Amino acid sequence: MKMVQIGAAGHYAYALSTAKKYGLAFTGLCSAHPEDRLDRAQRELAGYGFSPRVYEDFREMLAREAPDIAVVNTVMAKNSEIAAYALERGISVFCEKPVATDEAALAHLEEVYHAAGLRFAGGRKLCFCGMFGIDYLPHFETAYRFVKAGGLGDIRLANAQKSYKMGRREPYYSDRALYGGTIPWVAIHAIEWIQRIGGLFPTAVTAYGSTACNAGNGTMEASTLCLFSCEGGRMASVSADVMRPGTAPTHDDDRLRLVGSDGVLEVRGGHVYVIDRQGERELPLVRPEHELFEEFLLEIIGEGICRVRAEDAFSATRTALAARLSQDTGNTVWIR
Amino acid sequence: MKMVQIGAAGHYAYALSTAKKYGLAFTGLCSAHPEDRLDRAQRELAGYGFSPRVYEDFREMLAREAPDIAVVNTVMAKNSEIAAYALERGISVFCEKPVATDEAALAHLEEVYHAAGLRFAGGRKLCFCGMFGIDYLPHFETAYRFVKAGGLGDIRLANAQKSYKMGRREPYYSDRALYGGTIPWVAIHAIEWIQRIGGLFPTAVTAYGSTACNAGNGTMEASTLCLFSCEGGRMASVSADVMRPGTAPTHDDDRLRLVGSDGVLEVRGGHVYVIDRQGERELPLVRPEHELFEEFLLEIIGEGICRVRAEDAFSATRTALAARLSQDTGNTVWIR
Repeated sequence: MKMVQIGAAGHYAYALSTAKKYGLAFTGLCSAHPEDRLDRAQRELAGYGFSPRVYEDFREMLAREAPDIAVVNTVMAKNSEIAAYALERGISVFCEKPVATDEAALAHLEEVYHAAGLRFAGGRKLCFCGMFGIDYLPHFETAYRFVKAGGLGDIRLANAQKSYKMGRREPYYSDRALYGGTIPWVAIHAIEWIQRIGGLFPTAVTAYGSTACNAGNGTMEASTLCLFSCEGGRMASVSADVMRPGTAPTHDDDRLRLVGSDGVLEVRGGHVYVIDRQGERELPLVRPEHELFEEFLLEIIGEGICRVRAEDAFSATRTALAARLSQDTGNTVWIR
Repeated sequence: MKMVQIGAAGHYAYALSTAKKYGLAFTGLCSAHPEDRLDRAQRELAGYGFSPRVYEDFREMLAREAPDIAVVNTVMAKNSEIAAYALERGISVFCEKPVATDEAALAHLEEVYHAAGLRFAGGRKLCFCGMFGIDYLPHFETAYRFVKAGGLGDIRLANAQKSYKMGRREPYYSDRALYGGTIPWVAIHAIEWIQRIGGLFPTAVTAYGSTACNAGNGTMEASTLCLFSCEGGRMASVSADVMRPGTAPTHDDDRLRLVGSDGVLEVRGGHVYVIDRQGERELPLVRPEHELFEEFLLEIIGEGICRVRAEDAFSATRTALAARLSQDTGNTVWIR
C-alpha cells in the first residue's frame, strides 16, 4: 500500500510507526501552505526510513502517486478541501482536526465522503479518520472501555477540560482564518470525549471565548467555555484554555468527569478514578491493542474497525463550529 | 447579648460553639414550618448548655425576647420573610442560604436590610450574614487568602463544582416551592466562590437542570450545570449534582479551579494546589482566625469585620435565582 502526506503542520507523526511496521510505501510529500514545515517533516520521516518525493502541488502528487492513503495536515483551514479532493479520487484520508473550519466546508466534506464511499464500494474500504490520537492514550482508552461496558449506567452530566501551555505558537495560530479558533482547535478534543466516550448528543450550545492573556497571539482565544444541552435532559461543560503556566510539569491538563446513574468516573493527571457500588478506586490502565492510525489502516484492508469513526470526526467538528458560532454571536446555537 | 433561633432545618450548628464561647444568652427557639426538627435542635442546643424557651410564633418570640441576633433557618422558602421581619426590628440575622427563593422576596429583603441599617445606625451595628460556612474550611480559607494576596493575577476563567450524596432527604427537598431548587440550594456555594473568592462578576447565565436519577425526590434536580459570562470577558462554569455515590469516602466533592494571568489554583479533596512562576505545589492549609458566626458577632459589637458580607449573600442568591430562571425558561438570563 502506498501513502502520501499533504502539509506538515499537524500530527502526521501519529502515522509513522504504523506505516513503518506495515511496510507502507511512503512515496510523496507536499506542502500546501507556507506554514508547513517540510524540512522538519523530512527529517522526522527519514528517522523511520522514509524519503518521499517532494511535490509542489498536492493535486499533481495524488495523480502521479495514486496512493491508498493521504495524511492531510496543513493549516486547519485548508484541510477539508484537500481531504475532499482526495476522497473524491478514492484515497482514504487521515485528517488533522478540526476536519473543517467552517460549516459549508464541513458539509461539503461529509457529502463527498458519503458519495465516494458508495462509488468506491468495490475495492478496499474508503476510510476517513480525524486525528483524535489522544483517545488512544491509556487513560482515555481505560475510560472508554469502562463506560462502554456500562460501568456508569445512564450518564447524565459531563465536565471536560483541556488546558494547554501557550509555549511558542506558529504565526498561523494568531489568525482564526487559518487555525479555526481555540474551540475548534483545542476544545474539540473534550467535545469528542463527551460525545464518543460519554455517549452524549449535544443539541444546543452556549459558549464564550476571550483573547485576554493570549501572549500576543493575535485573535487566539486563551480561554473558552462551552455549555451543552444534550439529548434526554443530559448536560455537559467543556472548559478549554491555553493558560497553563509554563512551569507546569506537563504540557496539558486533560480531564473528563462523567456522572452516571451507577457511578462517577474521572480522568485526571493520566489516571482514571471511579466511584461506584464497589467504592472508590483507581482503574488499572489499559493500552489499546492498536494505535489510531493502525486501526484506520486495518479498517481499510478489511481486517478491523477504526473506533474513531468518520462520523465522530464530523460530529465533533460540527459541535465545535456551533460552539464557535455561539461565542461569536452571543446566542445559544442549536446543533443539527 | 441575646440570641434566638427560628426554624431548625439548616445550619444553626454554625452558631453554637461561638455562642457558648462568648456567653450569649440563647433565650428563644421557635418553629416556623412543620419540617423544622425542634426536638433534634433542642438536644443539640442542650449539648452546649442552652435551654431556650420554646415559642409557637416567631413574631411573639422576637417581641418578648427582643434579641440582638436571630438565627433563621426554617425551610428555605420562608427564611427571607422572617429575616426581613427581624431586621426591621433592629435584630441582626444569621440566615440560611439561599437567603430568598424568589426575586421579589430577595429584593424586599435587600431593601429592608439597607433601610434598617440606616434606621438603627446609632447603636450596635445591624448585620446580616448568609450561612456560607464552607468558605471557612481551611482549603477555601487558604484559596481566599492566596487569591486576595494577588497570587493569580487577573482571573479569567473559573470552574467550580459541588457534588453531594443524595442520602435520605427530608420531604421538603422534593418540593421546589419549599427548598428553592438545586441551583439555589447547592450550586449557590460554588457561585459564591467564583464571586467572592474568584472576584468574578457574572452578567449573564445559561443553566440546565434535570430531575433524572433523583431517587424519588419529587421535583429535585439531581444534576445542574450553569455557564456564566462575567465582566470583562471573563467566564465561569458551575456544575452541581446530587449524584455522588453513597460509597464515596466523603459527603461532598467541592472543587474550585481559578485560571489567572499569573497562575492556576485548584481546590480539590480538601487540598489547595497552585501552579505559578514558582512551579507546581500544594499550599499549606491555613485556618481562619474566627469562624463565620464569630466574625458576624465581632462585626455586630464593632470589633471586627465579617468577610462574608450581606452583599455576598444577596449577590450569590441573586445569581442563583437568575440561573434557575434560565433553567426554567431555556433562555440566557441577564443578571442585574
